[in-house]
Order: sequence, then C-alpha cells, then structure tokens
Amino acid sequence: MNKKNEITKKLKIDYPVIQAPMLGVTTPEMVAEISNNGGLGSLAVGGLSPDATLELIYKTKKLTNKPFAVNLFAHDIPDYNEDLEPMRHFLLGLADSRGYKLTSQDLTGFKFYTYHDQIDILIQENISVVSFTFGCLDKKDIEKLKTKETIIIGTATCLDEAIKLKENNTDMITAQGIEAGGHRGSFTKDKLPEIGLFSLIPQIVNNIDLPLIAAGGINNPETIKAAFTLGANAIQVGSAFIATKESKAILSYQNRLSYIKDTDTILTRAFSGRWARGIKNEFIEALQNSGLKIPPYPIQNSLTEKFRKLAQQNNDCEYTNMWAGQSAKSQKIKSTKEVFNFLISEL
Amino acid sequence: MNKKNEITKKLKIDYPVIQAPMLGVTTPEMVAEISNNGGLGSLAVGGLSPDATLELIYKTKKLTNKPFAVNLFAHDIPDYNEDLEPMRHFLLGLADSRGYKLTSQDLTGFKFYTYHDQIDILIQENISVVSFTFGCLDKKDIEKLKTKETIIIGTATCLDEAIKLKENNTDMITAQGIEAGGHRGSFTKDKLPEIGLFSLIPQIVNNIDLPLIAAGGINNPETIKAAFTLGANAIQVGSAFIATKESKAILSYQNRLSYIKDTDTILTRAFSGRWARGIKNEFIEALQNSGLKIPPYPIQNSLTEKFRKLAQQNNDCEYTNMWAGQSAKSQKIKSTKEVFNFLISEL
Repeated sequence: MNKKNEITKKLKIDYPVIQAPMLGVTTPEMVAEISNNGGLGSLAVGGLSPDATLELIYKTKKLTNKPFAVNLFAHDIPDYNEDLEPMRHFLLGLADSRGYKLTSQDLTGFKFYTYHDQIDILIQENISVVSFTFGCLDKKDIEKLKTKETIIIGTATCLDEAIKLKENNTDMITAQGIEAGGHRGSFTKDKLPEIGLFSLIPQIVNNIDLPLIAAGGINNPETIKAAFTLGANAIQVGSAFIATKESKAILSYQNRLSYIKDTDTILTRAFSGRWARGIKNEFIEALQNSGLKIPPYPIQNSLTEKFRKLAQQNNDCEYTNMWAGQSAKSQKIKSTKEVFNFLISEL
Repeated sequence: MNKKNEITKKLKIDYPVIQAPMLGVTTPEMVAEISNNGGLGSLAVGGLSPDATLELIYKTKKLTNKPFAVNLFAHDIPDYNEDLEPMRHFLLGLADSRGYKLTSQDLTGFKFYTYHDQIDILIQENISVVSFTFGCLDKKDIEKLKTKETIIIGTATCLDEAIKLKENNTDMITAQGIEAGGHRGSFTKDKLPEIGLFSLIPQIVNNIDLPLIAAGGINNPETIKAAFTLGANAIQVGSAFIATKESKAILSYQNRLSYIKDTDTILTRAFSGRWARGIKNEFIEALQNSGLKIPPYPIQNSLTEKFRKLAQQNNDCEYTNMWAGQSAKSQKIKSTKEVFNFLISEL
C-alpha cells in the first residue's frame, strides 16, 4: 500500500485533502462540509475555553458523522513579567483614533487556556484525529490518545521539528512551508525557520518515515500534483476556504482576497505575539511604527482580542488580523463545496 | 509548440536545464561542461571589470562552441555618503583576530563597474543569451541586444518584478523562489519579497505570457517535475553544482554542504551589501553582533573583498561567503557532468 492510500485509510477519508484549521475563519459548517464530501475538515480550537471547545465539537457533530480533526495549540503560558502598560496605552489610543470604545478593563484580567484544559474533552468525545501546532504534546497525553487509537498529527516548519515530532510518537506530519497563511507552527529555533515548501517537503520525506501532509501555497489541482511529486502523501489547504459562504471571516477580509498580490502578506507578531502570515494593514503598520516590544502569545493575543472583535463587528479589516498565504487570491466568494470539488477534480 | 519546446528551441539547447550563474563558484569549465552536454551554462560576470569579463568569455569559448549565457548585475552605483570608517575599523579588527593581514589600503580606492562597462563586450563577442539580476537593463541596451537576436532573461522574485521585466521587453523570466541560494534578484520593493517557489511560479505563469525558468530548491528529477507541473518551462539549478570538481568554491565550503541542514542558511547583507542566502558562519555572526549599519552593494562588497580572498586562500569558510539554497545538501563532491546527468535523467 502506498503512503497516499495509507493516509486516506488511516484517516478514514476518500481524498487526501485536508482543510486547514483556521481560528476565526473555520466554522463547524465548513468542517462538516469538507468531511461530508470525503476530505478531512479541521476544527480550530487552539487556546479556547473547555466550554467553547465542547460547543464547537457538538455543533460539528450535529452536521457530520464523518471523521474530522480537532486542532490544538501546544503552547506553554510564558513567564512574562514586563510592563504591559505601554502596549495597553498604545492600543487604547489606536482604538480611540479609529472610533472604537475600548476600555482599560478590556485589556486586563485575562484567563489563558492551554490544550491541557481541552484534551480530556477530545478524548471523551472520541475525536478520531487530533492535530496540533506550536510544539509537541506531552508524552502522557500522546499515550492517552493512543489508547483511543486517535490519529495524531503534528506541525513542522523545518526538519528538526519533524524529527522531534517523530520522537514524540506523532503519527503524521504537516510540513508547513513559508508560503502558508496564519500562525507559523515553529517551535525549535530562536530564529524562525523560513523554508519554502519546495525545500521542506523533500527534506522531511527523505529523512522521516511518516506520512507527510504538505501545507502552503496549495490551492488547485496543479499545486496538489506538484506537492505529491515532491513526496507529500496528502495536502492541506487553508486560504482557498477563507472566501466561502461557510467562512467566519468578515466580508471586507473575504473581498480583500480578490485583489491580493503575492507581496501583500507579511510575517507579523502584531496580533497574537506569535509569528503569523497575514495581509498588511493599518493595525500592523501602526504597531510597527510604535516601536513597542510585543509580548509573547497568548498575552498579546488577549490584549488585542476585544479590539479585533470591535473591528470585526464593523467589517473593518484594517484593524483585525487577515491571515492569508502567499497564494491566497480568491476571485469571488464561493461555497466550501465548490472549492473542495475544484481541489479534488483531478485526483 | 509548447513552451518547454519553445524555450529549448529559442536557447538552442537539448534540455530545459540551466546552470545558475554563481560568482565565485562558476568557472568556464563548469559552464562549458553544462553547455557541451545539452544544457545552458551561465557565466557569472556581475560587477567584474571589462578585462576580467572578456577573459572569462574567451576561456569559456575555448571550451565550448555551444550557446551559454552571460549573467550581468543590473545595479546602479548608489549615492552613499555615510562614513565607512566604522565598517573599516570593524573589518580590520576582525581580520586581525583571525590572523589575516588586512590593511587600510585594502579598504579604500575602489573602482566600481556596472553592466554598462560590459554590455558592448557581450555584443561584440556574439553572446547569444544575456541574463541579468538586480533590476532591468536600460531600454537602449535591450534594443542593441535585440538587433543581434540575443535572448534576454531577467530575474523576478515577485509578480510585480515579472511585470516590469515584461514591459522592459525581456524574453524570458527566471522566477527566483525564496529557497534559492546567493543574491536575491529583488528590485522593486522596500521590503524584500520572500515568496516561496510554490506560490511564485503559478502567479507569474498565470499573469505573464513569457517562458518561465524556475529557480530555488531544485536539485533532482522530482523537484524538476514539480516545477514543470506548476507551470515552469525550464529550471535553473545552482547549489547542486557547488560541490563539483569544476567549482571554484573552496574545499571547506564544498565539504560544508555534506552536513548542511535546512535552517543553516539565512538571508544576509553582511558580505556584499545586498541580500543573499548563504550558510551562517562566524563572519555573519560577528557583523550582526557589531550592530553596524551595512553600506549598500557594491560598497560593502568591495570592503569585504580582500578579507574574503584571504579567507579563501586559507580554505577558511568561516570568513567568506558560502552562498547556498535551502536544499543545498551535497553528500560528496562530484563532477559537473555527473550532477547534470542526474538532473536530466528523467526528462
């Protein structure tokens, strides 16, 4: 059995096509639509509360009885004691200048969750595929998942991370090329690895004997074939699902993708404190110009959360994150099913 | 006629495989070996004197009567008036600490050349393919080359650059992905475009009706097929030719490629003043730690030239540039012909 067949058999899906977990974009409707059509939907729950996690899983299960993945963030809460007041002051001023009523209270008293608050829910709910990014799961959690025969997928942005994931007993590896939108999964290096998919896939395939899922810049039958030619066994698509009817992305963000250029996305820590690829906008520019030191994830993520929500309520894409990959262009808003059918059309 | 056939016919070669011009690595022997075997060798002469240019062309012509490309740098000499003394002082100190006798005189009185000093030589020598990077050639030079039916190849690192090259009457475009080793060809943006080949090829192919040569991370039959699947009409390979008998790279640099990891290369301005991908070494680290402002190309290039030569004479790869792409690993030193035959083995 070749690895492409192995991966679809293990994941119990018809096509080796995975919808990328995109917090703030993915909905239970999107996940279910992918899974119902023979792909693997991925529900993004990284950093959410146990209640929110459970609610999203319930909603998805109501819409599909096919397997879907639930995606976790494998981060720690950092020990960060620097003064947050300058960032708070900056955000309050920026919000005010845009006409948003942000208060000091919106920028304090955060409750941070990690995957440790969620893992038992996933086990109890018999989630068949657990994927994660930002690191490795603890050994005991891997063991717990394995007793339920859960398929475990980790994210690597360089060969060293793939090696660590393999040592950690991960079943499959998502190779995230520098082209990919959203958060970088990187977790081993001081300097962010910035490996293009053309280099990343062959290096992991040639060194790690695990099924490989390629992610980044993949959005049509040609890019899918190219990824398979390089040795990938399945592919993951994110940006192509942003401008869909099932997407939670605000309309101005969905429309922004119709005229995006390859140089319009950058890597930024402005929104969450972790590096992520998104479309340059006024918020990123203002924070860059401020010269302020950005606290790590999840602190910065919580500091900007209310601001982003206000912007989203006003369909204001200049002041919320617009994660997008280097090939994120979408001419018009389609249904998730249309996008999926196009992806699998030459498989 | 499909574009792959069009490109080989226009270039008068048998295989759509181009050896990348690599100043400091490429030799007339390497270029001739590629061209004699049915590919297109590229002689790197960017920034060299007219005499040195002519000598390299003569040497290459003695070794092959097949077409080869001559590669130019389309840069301007910048109007840079800042004090170079801090950089000179730093370089003298660093050289001294390594035991090299660098003098103040080695760091002054530079003569800078541009392609304007070389173009008439290329025309007079009937060079059939002129490729360039760092910008566009002047309109009048393009016209001069066209009267000789010279094929003109420009370098793009994002779609906007490809558009400018097409407007400039360039015949073919080399799409240089972020994976590629050596100097970035970028010339339109304040911020360096960092587009992976997976995103770059389709975007240029879908928007620019010119033959496309893919560069970056390509080193074997699979990566060649993947590039063609994405729409490339030819491919360019650089790093795979560094560790060859015909290479001018010092032995410690060639050997370094046998254990290089994907995260070992970085983009640096340390050696030349222009962004280039190379293997991290002590020189880069020392310059980073110095906090000094790096003058633009070709000033920094001239400032570091003697230092690099001394290091090369001592087979000291920690103090000279080791340009390399993200897939530059070479297990052992081969002949150029062996590498070339492997590349074309499944075409």
